[in-house]
Amino acid sequence: MQPFDLIIRNANVVTASDSFPCDIGVRDGRIATLALALELKSARHEIDAAGRTVTPGGIDSHVHLDQATGDGSIMADDFESGTRSAACGGSTTVIPFACQLKGQSLRAAVDDYQRRAYEKALIDFAIHLIITDPTEDVLYRELPELIAEGYTSFKIYMTYDALKLDDRQILETLSVARAEGAMVMLHAESSDCIAWLTERLLAAGHKAPRYHASSRPMLVEREATHRAIAMAELVDVPILIVHVSGREAMEQIRWAQSQGLKVYAETCPQYLFLTADSLGSDNSFDGAKCICSPPPRDAANQQVIWNGLENGLFEVFSSDHAPFRFDGPDGKKAHGEDVSFDKIANGIPGVETRMALLWSEGVRGGRITPQQFVALTSTNAAKIYGLYPRKGSIAIGADADLVIWDEGRAVHISNEMLHHNVDYTPYAGMQLSAWPAITLSRGEVVWDGEPRGAVGRGQFLPCDSPAPAQVRRRKTELPL
Amino acid sequence: MQPFDLIIRNANVVTASDSFPCDIGVRDGRIATLALALELKSARHEIDAAGRTVTPGGIDSHVHLDQATGDGSIMADDFESGTRSAACGGSTTVIPFACQLKGQSLRAAVDDYQRRAYEKALIDFAIHLIITDPTEDVLYRELPELIAEGYTSFKIYMTYDALKLDDRQILETLSVARAEGAMVMLHAESSDCIAWLTERLLAAGHKAPRYHASSRPMLVEREATHRAIAMAELVDVPILIVHVSGREAMEQIRWAQSQGLKVYAETCPQYLFLTADSLGSDNSFDGAKCICSPPPRDAANQQVIWNGLENGLFEVFSSDHAPFRFDGPDGKKAHGEDVSFDKIANGIPGVETRMALLWSEGVRGGRITPQQFVALTSTNAAKIYGLYPRKGSIAIGADADLVIWDEGRAVHISNEMLHHNVDYTPYAGMQLSAWPAITLSRGEVVWDGEPRGAVGRGQFLPCDSPAPAQVRRRKTELPL
Amino acid sequence: MQPFDLIIRNANVVTASDSFPCDIGVRDGRIATLALALELKSARHEIDAAGRTVTPGGIDSHVHLDQATGDGSIMADDFESGTRSAACGGSTTVIPFACQLKGQSLRAAVDDYQRRAYEKALIDFAIHLIITDPTEDVLYRELPELIAEGYTSFKIYMTYDALKLDDRQILETLSVARAEGAMVMLHAESSDCIAWLTERLLAAGHKAPRYHASSRPMLVEREATHRAIAMAELVDVPILIVHVSGREAMEQIRWAQSQGLKVYAETCPQYLFLTADSLGSDNSFDGAKCICSPPPRDAANQQVIWNGLENGLFEVFSSDHAPFRFDGPDGKKAHGEDVSFDKIANGIPGVETRMALLWSEGVRGGRITPQQFVALTSTNAAKIYGLYPRKGSIAIGADADLVIWDEGRAVHISNEMLHHNVDYTPYAGMQLSAWPAITLSRGEVVWDGEPRGAVGRGQFLPCDSPAPAQVRRRKTELPL
Amino acid sequence: MQPFDLIIRNANVVTASDSFPCDIGVRDGRIATLALALELKSARHEIDAAGRTVTPGGIDSHVHLDQATGDGSIMADDFESGTRSAACGGSTTVIPFACQLKGQSLRAAVDDYQRRAYEKALIDFAIHLIITDPTEDVLYRELPELIAEGYTSFKIYMTYDALKLDDRQILETLSVARAEGAMVMLHAESSDCIAWLTERLLAAGHKAPRYHASSRPMLVEREATHRAIAMAELVDVPILIVHVSGREAMEQIRWAQSQGLKVYAETCPQYLFLTADSLGSDNSFDGAKCICSPPPRDAANQQVIWNGLENGLFEVFSSDHAPFRFDGPDGKKAHGEDVSFDKIANGIPGVETRMALLWSEGVRGGRITPQQFVALTSTNAAKIYGLYPRKGSIAIGADADLVIWDEGRAVHISNEMLHHNVDYTPYAGMQLSAWPAITLSRGEVVWDGEPRGAVGRGQFLPCDSPAPAQVRRRKTELPL
Repeated sequence: MQPFDLIIRNANVVTASDSFPCDIGVRDGRIATLALALELKSARHEIDAAGRTVTPGGIDSHVHLDQATGDGSIMADDFESGTRSAACGGSTTVIPFACQLKGQSLRAAVDDYQRRAYEKALIDFAIHLIITDPTEDVLYRELPELIAEGYTSFKIYMTYDALKLDDRQILETLSVARAEGAMVMLHAESSDCIAWLTERLLAAGHKAPRYHASSRPMLVEREATHRAIAMAELVDVPILIVHVSGREAMEQIRWAQSQGLKVYAETCPQYLFLTADSLGSDNSFDGAKCICSPPPRDAANQQVIWNGLENGLFEVFSSDHAPFRFDGPDGKKAHGEDVSFDKIANGIPGVETRMALLWSEGVRGGRITPQQFVALTSTNAAKIYGLYPRKGSIAIGADADLVIWDEGRAVHISNEMLHHNVDYTPYAGMQLSAWPAITLSRGEVVWDGEPRGAVGRGQFLPCDSPAPAQVRRRKTELPL
Repeated sequence: MQPFDLIIRNANVVTASDSFPCDIGVRDGRIATLALALELKSARHEIDAAGRTVTPGGIDSHVHLDQATGDGSIMADDFESGTRSAACGGSTTVIPFACQLKGQSLRAAVDDYQRRAYEKALIDFAIHLIITDPTEDVLYRELPELIAEGYTSFKIYMTYDALKLDDRQILETLSVARAEGAMVMLHAESSDCIAWLTERLLAAGHKAPRYHASSRPMLVEREATHRAIAMAELVDVPILIVHVSGREAMEQIRWAQSQGLKVYAETCPQYLFLTADSLGSDNSFDGAKCICSPPPRDAANQQVIWNGLENGLFEVFSSDHAPFRFDGPDGKKAHGEDVSFDKIANGIPGVETRMALLWSEGVRGGRITPQQFVALTSTNAAKIYGLYPRKGSIAIGADADLVIWDEGRAVHISNEMLHHNVDYTPYAGMQLSAWPAITLSRGEVVWDGEPRGAVGRGQFLPCDSPAPAQVRRRKTELPL
Repeated sequence: MQPFDLIIRNANVVTASDSFPCDIGVRDGRIATLALALELKSARHEIDAAGRTVTPGGIDSHVHLDQATGDGSIMADDFESGTRSAACGGSTTVIPFACQLKGQSLRAAVDDYQRRAYEKALIDFAIHLIITDPTEDVLYRELPELIAEGYTSFKIYMTYDALKLDDRQILETLSVARAEGAMVMLHAESSDCIAWLTERLLAAGHKAPRYHASSRPMLVEREATHRAIAMAELVDVPILIVHVSGREAMEQIRWAQSQGLKVYAETCPQYLFLTADSLGSDNSFDGAKCICSPPPRDAANQQVIWNGLENGLFEVFSSDHAPFRFDGPDGKKAHGEDVSFDKIANGIPGVETRMALLWSEGVRGGRITPQQFVALTSTNAAKIYGLYPRKGSIAIGADADLVIWDEGRAVHISNEMLHHNVDYTPYAGMQLSAWPAITLSRGEVVWDGEPRGAVGRGQFLPCDSPAPAQVRRRKTELPL
Repeated sequence: MQPFDLIIRNANVVTASDSFPCDIGVRDGRIATLALALELKSARHEIDAAGRTVTPGGIDSHVHLDQATGDGSIMADDFESGTRSAACGGSTTVIPFACQLKGQSLRAAVDDYQRRAYEKALIDFAIHLIITDPTEDVLYRELPELIAEGYTSFKIYMTYDALKLDDRQILETLSVARAEGAMVMLHAESSDCIAWLTERLLAAGHKAPRYHASSRPMLVEREATHRAIAMAELVDVPILIVHVSGREAMEQIRWAQSQGLKVYAETCPQYLFLTADSLGSDNSFDGAKCICSPPPRDAANQQVIWNGLENGLFEVFSSDHAPFRFDGPDGKKAHGEDVSFDKIANGIPGVETRMALLWSEGVRGGRITPQQFVALTSTNAAKIYGLYPRKGSIAIGADADLVIWDEGRAVHISNEMLHHNVDYTPYAGMQLSAWPAITLSRGEVVWDGEPRGAVGRGQFLPCDSPAPAQVRRRKTELPL
């Protein structure tokens, strides 16, 4: 028997269901063997995990990198800085978005995005599509082709003028997802309500960043969530509601799940650790750093989100990393200050902090189990987006994408410690009790206190269609 | 003391809360006195009610008469036949719709509609507006003027291409209702879902009337109801959801009411006495007679509607009388048979059968009290639409609009016994146990087994704004 | 025609559904005529209401007067002081409780209670029973006899050792109510949970009045409410849940109502105007004045109770007047101070303040309509407890039990202004904007700023069984 | 390196989260290594799984074997036949009950039960306690001692005269569970409601087995479930509701879970595959074979139970194996026929059919995933009852308790193929598409088409307290 390429000794392995001490034998970038201590003989390299927890590398299934936004805003992270930042925070796969611009073909959007990724990624990546212009050709020729090529998930916006689809377009697009086996992500906020409120707020002179939250109250998200669910129910296709922010939307989702509908839900760190108060006061612009959509809510909603992570309402915990700088000519400040909240780019950075925030405050804080952490940050996303079993677990044959955790020490979050290309983090000043010690991608160390690994080593991951279990269908007599 | 114009002796008066035996003295068309037997001396005319129940005349607050439809369909009832039919069925007030055609001014629509009413009505009437084109001028000049003139309620459609508003327009229009004190009625069905389903059904060759119900499943109504409620919640204005058909929509309304939102609801006889099966089979066209929107559901939903009438979820029981003929060049048959369900005019006649159906099956069937009957068919509508206290009750000073009931005899419904100008009734063949013996409008007999009263005697009723109790508002910090 | 005994001129009459200006003609203690001004000629007495609001006299359907409590606590109000206090506060009917002591026959309890009432009451009264010992003889002989004699409602306690029934006894008793046509009131709190919590609290040294609230948290009421509803559903009989204190219990009741179950609910002023904070701090005993069960909750629950009054969840607004003195040898202080919260008599006075509190803060505060006030304080109780149509409305033939309101002046509540025999009021210091100017009982003034009317003029009112509409039944195949 | 004791080649391993092809190396009865094919060299024994699915052996955490019942009924299976039957059906651990008889000490009950188990079990077992007599000594001395010895779970009955606790006793017992770290299982049916209904049914002459279902309608289970949840909420301790039968109880559980309460739920095959109709007609006694409590409901509830298995409401799928014979002197027939339904022993056999029913109809039927199957039949029970990580997964260091599945062939269920000592199976006649080919217990074959393994080889498993994640607590100011 050949020696292993790598053995990780004394690991305390955690999967989405289990936890056990073992040695991990890696060969050709894959997990070849899990064994009791001393069962494995020799390896070219060894890492002594020393009893530390080892989890699957994170899959950040909702990140924006070097994306054409359609509205002129500039993303500060390209595939290089973005994937480096991800790796340093314990993620080994990212799934950013190829965004179709209105009038553009999907193929052109994908080709452009693959060029942006080309030879830059440090870790593996898949690509979601964003459908903004669902013409006949897009829906019935391009989309089936791209799904067959491994672009099996796409996002639909119910708000943002440059991106949104109307309900009829959503129905058509959901219908293609059903026919071709794709997973649809929905950004659920009511566009018309937001526009109406924004106009009123501006007319009343309310321009400060905090009015971003006023312009998108919870009911705006609740309504769109209900509508998205109804459309998915009509088409009889599973959907995933992204970045759910609090109770009212969750009640809609729970109702749907209790009816047997396949409605998945995602939430993000901003809904656990920020509130609308983070957007500041009338005379402050600093709160623009925390502008994202839906906006963070309040402390009561934070608790409800924690409950949802714990009781299974949520499947996915992603960052929704949106790398807009605060200062500089392209920054939130330049576009928003002295102007108005609605001109400030929506989104906050978070690809590097996601894993440690949830491990420290969730697992070590006693709110979720280590297994739930793994499910939420890695395994479920791998299954929902068709990356499983290659990604998402510590299992025989899976890629050796691993995080070895350093626990119990104080980590003060500051932007200086991070590797993204954004000039702030909304979590600056928080103190955590854990951070990844080592991140491995296909058996190769990409973070061990310093970023490692060659630019361009990351591979594109074509995705399978979601498994039948994820797309279970109702019986229906309708001609759908 | 002058003798009364009319005394009704031995009446068993029922109001929305009370029931008591008395004599009713009428002077100048108004109820001047209610008294124990023999307290009242003399009158020019006397009617001996002989212990029969006397209720307020019905207010049918949702009828379509001689209405410009915007889609070429022709209404068979004008103000003459429509109000005669109403009177013969125990209604003494109708509130039909002045429908703005797209591009038309509201004023033009109202003027046109008053011309149609002029010198034709046999009973009193108010007029709702239908807003289809909410331009700046319409919203901020015409609508306030018309509200001030007594057109204080208007209907918004969320479906039908010729009529519907988009969500932004709905928000603007609700906002004017809030500012000016008007009551907004919403037809809540999701236009895009219906269009998408209809296209699918037709593509699959499903053209028979029964597919009308398939094209508008309950979730289509539930979604729009949720959306309407969310918009009303945002604007902080009361609304009334018209013609609610069953459980899923009612659950949305109950949730809203339990949150303290002012969401009123109306239902109609078709949701108590018809089901989707009434639309027939694949090879039958007769079911077109029962096509209305939302479509009737099933027996379980009928029971849920009865519960809602009994437990206060519903405020209003109207007919949604839509007088489309079945035969003839303008009939449902000509436009629908050999064509497809989506070409058949939506709506069924019912202005004359409404009161007797609910008295017979509801009150005498033991499902609701006589007082609930009065509230549902008359008092609540008077209050919600600003006709109270002139209309809607048997009270001192109110118009002497009364129904004296003939109870306990078998009434077989047939179209021949009705006085509308439609060639069918969907309730043909039903056997009731009650019918109005006498209907009085302002003290004048308009039905006593034969239609009475001069054409044109009906008066236009300008409406007040809904009372503050009907438009209670949340505290809000938003600049609305 | 004889002159009337009394005419009230220029009244603005309000009923549970209507409001109209009129003159009221009274003959033989009953309302003989309602008429437009000047229709009525002459009367022996006239009162000029001068445009003031006139409502039906209040029916306080939940009061404790001179009641055998079973636990040694002494009630300070007998029928004389209690009914005088009621009349001065605008109530013209009270329904106190004849409480069966364990081992006692119901007949003995009723006879004893009639003796206590005899020649003392200033206003009319009916009597509820309290069943504490449902033997075979009680259930199947005494109870049917007493129901036939006009004792058609009874209360069941789910807590208090001296009073409570177990679930099996409750089922048997509900079953008799169904068979004989009686209305069952339930005090819904879980006895075992309270006992367990109380023991824990005392063991931890928590003896102050505020721990009364800790010993009866909302879930204790929610659980018993659910259980009561389930038992009523099983027996298929209507029930009324008394003194509901907040959201969690209301959610159970709303669920039941939405299922078509006949579950009525009552609330009281203490749940609108007091909170758990009213029970004071660890070092204060004054909070004992606000000890009642269930305890008042918090401000959020007060708002939810207001919503329930407004949206129809509640049928009845009573005082639950429980006249325990604070000072003196029988007072709360003597029995509770230096002892522990569980020894303090449960209950607070309120028969005189009930009507003005709700009119001032509810109607004039814009939270409910005048008609809702009438329904909640008078009409609904009359119907539910079988006093209608003699009591509960301003209608032809009804008793001339009336309140003429004095509105718009500042009323500072102090115990000195009240006529009960309790030495405090929990509402001392509140400022209201209305109080009854005149109260009439059967056409006789019993309050016009001073108490009027002879001791003993009050009559016992035998009650009818609740009307069929109040006891609608499910179809069931069970042998019930 | 020593050769393995056993290698299972070409296994398609499924855990509660993962699925992967591998070879399994077993040493000393534990899983020593999981590896890609050919990584493992040599073993004393090899089994070629030939690509078949390999799951963890089942943990049947709710079985009754040779149990003192307290009511004279005799269980036909002792530890020998019961564990053999379990093994033949793919279960490798059972958790039966040591039942305290009233008046008996817990220690005596446990000692007696260990004697019954001694040298009989073929597979490993843990023991739940049943607390029927919670004296001070039982609660505060015996129970803490036994919990420390590995009896960390106990069951409380809310019904059955010989077994039930009252609410106060339940609160005390829950409180000990909280203090000492035990898991409480609750049989939630309302005893008083059942007794009352049963008496009525019998009085009406309804004695046939089908009236067993009439005597325990869904509301009886719903009420007790709500009550159990409220008590657990009060004590702030997790509970597990056993054998949940349908929608109404599930709605209570979902509500609790959505509030963040730790309420676990179990269901059983009888609620998926039987209905109340299985209890037969008035003139049939054969339905007694399907008498269990709660009774099976209807087809709609079966679907709701499937939804709950799929959407995570349920944690545990057990058999509730209750081995009462039908014929013979101790059988259901002898005790029930010509007598009445309430005399028939409650319970049905199912320890051997549980796994195959769920794999065939659940996994292969497309209703749940293989991973969900593993979680429901093994992993979750191991975690909840403190057997994890020794039992419940295919993981390094875990006991080699495994099932190798034979799939795709027709299995007609008949009682002849089963190995229990009961003379019938309620599932006779069903056709399944899978059955365990081989069951291994600690690496030893105990079923391969024939029962294998020595009587008495099974070991007693002392249990840990549930992990902190299973007993998360609310903050509370109460002195609990």
